Amino acid sequence: MNAELIFVGTELLLGNIVNTNGAYLAERLAAIGVDSYYQTVVGDNAERLMSVLKIAFDRSDVVILSGGLGPTQDDITKETVAEYFHKELLLDEEIKADIAAYFKKRGREMAENNIKQAMIPVGAKALKNANGTAPGVLIEEGGKVAILLPGPPSELKPLFAEQVEPFLKAKSGSILYSVLVKVCGISESKIAEQLDDLIQMQGKVTVAPYAKLGEVHLRVTAKGNDEKEAKKAVKPIVKEIKSRLGSAVYTTHEEVTLEQAVVDLLLANKLTVTTVESCTGGLIAGRLINVSGVSEVFKSGFVTYSNKAKKRIVGVKKLTLQKYGAVSTETVLEMARGAAIYSKADVAVAVSGIAGPDGGTAEKPVGLVYIGCCVCGEVTVREYHFSGNREKVRQSTVTEALILMRDCILKNYAEKTFKKE
Amino acid sequence: MNAELIFVGTELLLGNIVNTNGAYLAERLAAIGVDSYYQTVVGDNAERLMSVLKIAFDRSDVVILSGGLGPTQDDITKETVAEYFHKELLLDEEIKADIAAYFKKRGREMAENNIKQAMIPVGAKALKNANGTAPGVLIEEGGKVAILLPGPPSELKPLFAEQVEPFLKAKSGSILYSVLVKVCGISESKIAEQLDDLIQMQGKVTVAPYAKLGEVHLRVTAKGNDEKEAKKAVKPIVKEIKSRLGSAVYTTHEEVTLEQAVVDLLLANKLTVTTVESCTGGLIAGRLINVSGVSEVFKSGFVTYSNKAKKRIVGVKKLTLQKYGAVSTETVLEMARGAAIYSKADVAVAVSGIAGPDGGTAEKPVGLVYIGCCVCGEVTVREYHFSGNREKVRQSTVTEALILMRDCILKNYAEKTFKKE
Repeated sequence: MNAELIFVGTELLLGNIVNTNGAYLAERLAAIGVDSYYQTVVGDNAERLMSVLKIAFDRSDVVILSGGLGPTQDDITKETVAEYFHKELLLDEEIKADIAAYFKKRGREMAENNIKQAMIPVGAKALKNANGTAPGVLIEEGGKVAILLPGPPSELKPLFAEQVEPFLKAKSGSILYSVLVKVCGISESKIAEQLDDLIQMQGKVTVAPYAKLGEVHLRVTAKGNDEKEAKKAVKPIVKEIKSRLGSAVYTTHEEVTLEQAVVDLLLANKLTVTTVESCTGGLIAGRLINVSGVSEVFKSGFVTYSNKAKKRIVGVKKLTLQKYGAVSTETVLEMARGAAIYSKADVAVAVSGIAGPDGGTAEKPVGLVYIGCCVCGEVTVREYHFSGNREKVRQSTVTEALILMRDCILKNYAEKTFKKE
Repeated sequence: MNAELIFVGTELLLGNIVNTNGAYLAERLAAIGVDSYYQTVVGDNAERLMSVLKIAFDRSDVVILSGGLGPTQDDITKETVAEYFHKELLLDEEIKADIAAYFKKRGREMAENNIKQAMIPVGAKALKNANGTAPGVLIEEGGKVAILLPGPPSELKPLFAEQVEPFLKAKSGSILYSVLVKVCGISESKIAEQLDDLIQMQGKVTVAPYAKLGEVHLRVTAKGNDEKEAKKAVKPIVKEIKSRLGSAVYTTHEEVTLEQAVVDLLLANKLTVTTVESCTGGLIAGRLINVSGVSEVFKSGFVTYSNKAKKRIVGVKKLTLQKYGAVSTETVLEMARGAAIYSKADVAVAVSGIAGPDGGTAEKPVGLVYIGCCVCGEVTVREYHFSGNREKVRQSTVTEALILMRDCILKNYAEKTFKKE
């Protein structure tokens, strides 16, 4: 069984929005073992959508469409797909009641044109949408399946995960089990070297690396006759990867981010943390605070962009700044130590660098960044050379700061942490 | 003339990366007046790429492909397009020298397989790539044009802007001129109401609204026989929009972001700024520091996540926190004033809110955020109710904080600012 994707929306053709649904749906299909070879974007135009639909059903069993399910005349996805299957649209009273309830909950009256959203092709299944007014639609006929989803990611994602994935899994019949091994602090090429035999392996289990900024994710997947069999095949490979890459593996849980892993490490060791940032200007704190429940470990952080702020707030010495400059091992060391003392935090991460595009010199070029981490009084400072524009340098710095924090905490608290594992 | 887009890469089909090139190329084509009705994603597979290529040339004059120009056997875009046009590939010595020079500059030796990248279809034009090893290719034959671009955005974008846009502009013959009017602090529906006649206008000049998080961008475009004529048609419409929307228009310069507009306002009025953040945890400071040259106005900022930090660092009173709670008008007012005093900054922005998913109550639900702005001692605090997940609430807060800062500065420094305009 294979499935292809059609994204309907003139706003995509005009570049008004980035098609993040594309990556989401593609990744989910891959994860449940449904092959997908094509994606198409087309505007809110019935004739062109029909031509694209014909092409898609010529080469794929399942076509998943997103967008164009709104209440206006411009929204033509459902009408066009119904026409393709020669089906009439009929009012679904239950869906109409759902839409009315959705508006009522928000203290608003349902408009007349929302009734269009409750019209469902005869014989099709309406997929309830708890996060918006457009229900999804599933049509199955003559060996072909069309699945229509609303465009907004906040509506599409839960609807797909809860109602479409189970349907596709059952339909494809293949049982697939996968574990995502997330790795940080080793380059993709080094990982490819160390895991070459596993990545090249052409058997029941596959290992696919995905490079992310500063991280590599390895998806270990097995097909089987039942989940137990597939699980059993994946387990020893995950164990082997962990034993080869050691502590560079920060999680094998899909939903755990790098910042979550750092916060978990702080929580496990009952440590508090503070940040003192120059070129990243608050983004490290911002990323730690992505983690719900971070308040247990994060109390305060500082952005010390000027030299004066570095002196005044975290006590960097005037002489240090004069002799070595703001972007130096020495300054970052004092920033980290000063922040830890001022905040009474167990861990402090400090950053100073040249994010560009201006401010670089021959000696200290754009992309030069120092990151320091103080754990219980002991400071480690590392020098980095990042490439790319201001945005890229800053984002790379944030990720490397999280990795350095993790390294330094592990070094000091290895026993406790590994006992916990 | 119309153009369609093909993105080649199995990593897109697996959802490994988000297709940001799609939005970039679509927006640029729209901006230069080239119609584009279809986009297709296909994997690194010659047979499937060939089938997609045939479909594309059946319905479009120009096909722009990105990706699959690397040095490995998997990279098949150039070879497949050459086959479509029945063209052989020949070594381009100049391009080979460029690639060798690219490696030499980075202290590396050119590998044998990079020679593949210097092979160009007979009669085609190689497009030099200063940011990578894969040159672009332009093939024009029998009224059809194929343009091949490298996949990495840092290579694709400059190559497209510098070499492809001028070609397409000359080819389409139509002269198009547009101005982007960026608006903040008014909802999209309100703008649609106020500009209804302009947006519905079906003439020489078009006004297209694009909703962004907390902002609306209006693209005003005219076609003409020459640029002067098109410019002349756009000018009165932009003037009319500015007169209707007033100070909600923050710029008419494409490259100016909201944070840049705020920093420019601070610079123009010789004001310094500080931030004190709770739920956004550094992201407001982080966004201001996106602006290169912000060091003139931004010296320091604070993340006061705990109550203790709010008291200790910016002097929020214990009684205030006890009586009103951390998420309240009163606390945010004291945070803003305290940060301004401690930092000796003219402007201070303060934020406290419930980003979720936990921590909400019936009285103070998830999404409730207070933002305060202190300008020369006078504090304005506004209450907001944001929807969406933790990430969305935090990002909305950052944008609204910038908008509030802008409002408060304008209110206090209107004269100076408008004199400058």
